[in-house]
Amino acid sequence: MSKNIAVLLSGCGVFDGSEIHETVASLIALSKAGASVQCLAPNKKQHHVINHLTGEEMTEHRNVLVEAARIARGAILDIKEAKVEDFDALFIPGGFGAAKNLSSFAFEGSSGSIDPSVRSLIQSFHQAGKPIGAVCIAPALLALALQKGSLTIGSDQGTAEALEQLGATHQVCPVTEALIDHENKLVTAPAYMEDAKIHEVAEGIEKAVLAVLELCS
Amino acid sequence: MSKNIAVLLSGCGVFDGSEIHETVASLIALSKAGASVQCLAPNKKQHHVINHLTGEEMTEHRNVLVEAARIARGAILDIKEAKVEDFDALFIPGGFGAAKNLSSFAFEGSSGSIDPSVRSLIQSFHQAGKPIGAVCIAPALLALALQKGSLTIGSDQGTAEALEQLGATHQVCPVTEALIDHENKLVTAPAYMEDAKIHEVAEGIEKAVLAVLELCS
Repeated sequence: MSKNIAVLLSGCGVFDGSEIHETVASLIALSKAGASVQCLAPNKKQHHVINHLTGEEMTEHRNVLVEAARIARGAILDIKEAKVEDFDALFIPGGFGAAKNLSSFAFEGSSGSIDPSVRSLIQSFHQAGKPIGAVCIAPALLALALQKGSLTIGSDQGTAEALEQLGATHQVCPVTEALIDHENKLVTAPAYMEDAKIHEVAEGIEKAVLAVLELCS
Repeated sequence: MSKNIAVLLSGCGVFDGSEIHETVASLIALSKAGASVQCLAPNKKQHHVINHLTGEEMTEHRNVLVEAARIARGAILDIKEAKVEDFDALFIPGGFGAAKNLSSFAFEGSSGSIDPSVRSLIQSFHQAGKPIGAVCIAPALLALALQKGSLTIGSDQGTAEALEQLGATHQVCPVTEALIDHENKLVTAPAYMEDAKIHEVAEGIEKAVLAVLELCS
């Protein structure tokens, strides 16, 4: 039986949404491994819109679900319509959207809040004994929602400390590898938290994807 | 010596810009093969903005270069600043942006026009004897600019006929393969012109990328 994996997005673009390279690398690895995928995102306004050419904030407004639909080629569900029982695992790519739209971690670190629908989704997968993968900055969502787990965000000390303040244990991990917490069924990988090449990011993400699928019982 | 490849984008999103999966698959394959990459896009207004969740046109305006910068993580050049002598080859992912922003092929088929800066870029690479890769609908740009070449857009008969009306020769090609025109140094692959899985699209694109790099003298 093919595994069905929920992929949680947060917009479309590294600075205000889902990191596009990480998301596509996740989708390629899942498809290559024979998994089915359903992308999800919250139907809410983005925290802000960043001009990715200049790095400056734009005056317009965009919706997280509508922009995330760009990466999903339209095949995306409102997170509120997602039922945990329909899926074997959850996977969360990075990008500032995870820390700006799905939580306030980018602005408030370990004092930050998490979107209630995202917290509920993560807690439900965890309580159902289903594995969760998260890459780049997205492991912060796991720490915010679960207050535990052995996680990696690569080697950035400040971010690692924030995760530990939330109750997680941080481990340094190279960009081409993934860290597996077998007890909590959590898989994390550094991706663009490191200054890495896109194919190295894709290599680490593929290992994370394969580990998540392996943990699906 | 590492090859330096120009990757021409047309926005960010399958329905009004560069197809995101195809673009990222191209960037991963180029990086994996050891090539350097410089993304390019024209600094102009998009033809329109499509809500990728509903498929409907939105009332707002977006800029092709600014939106393409999302896929390029900010590392993108205005096509007008690109010098052909700095590059070993050109690669063009698909998406409706190629047929709406870089040309009017989506609306006018073989009667369509091509953005003058895109025509000039393609003709300059070709005249310099440098290979050009194009996937999905982007081979239409090669036909519009060069009026020759053995090209594939997969198996869609209407689109194939439009390419032939422009002076190209069309060949059917499976999604996991690439078509090489050695004489003209043109490499094309069907990608999402076929109803394919993302990892199959990535497989065909990787073959196209490797063929382009092989043709760099």
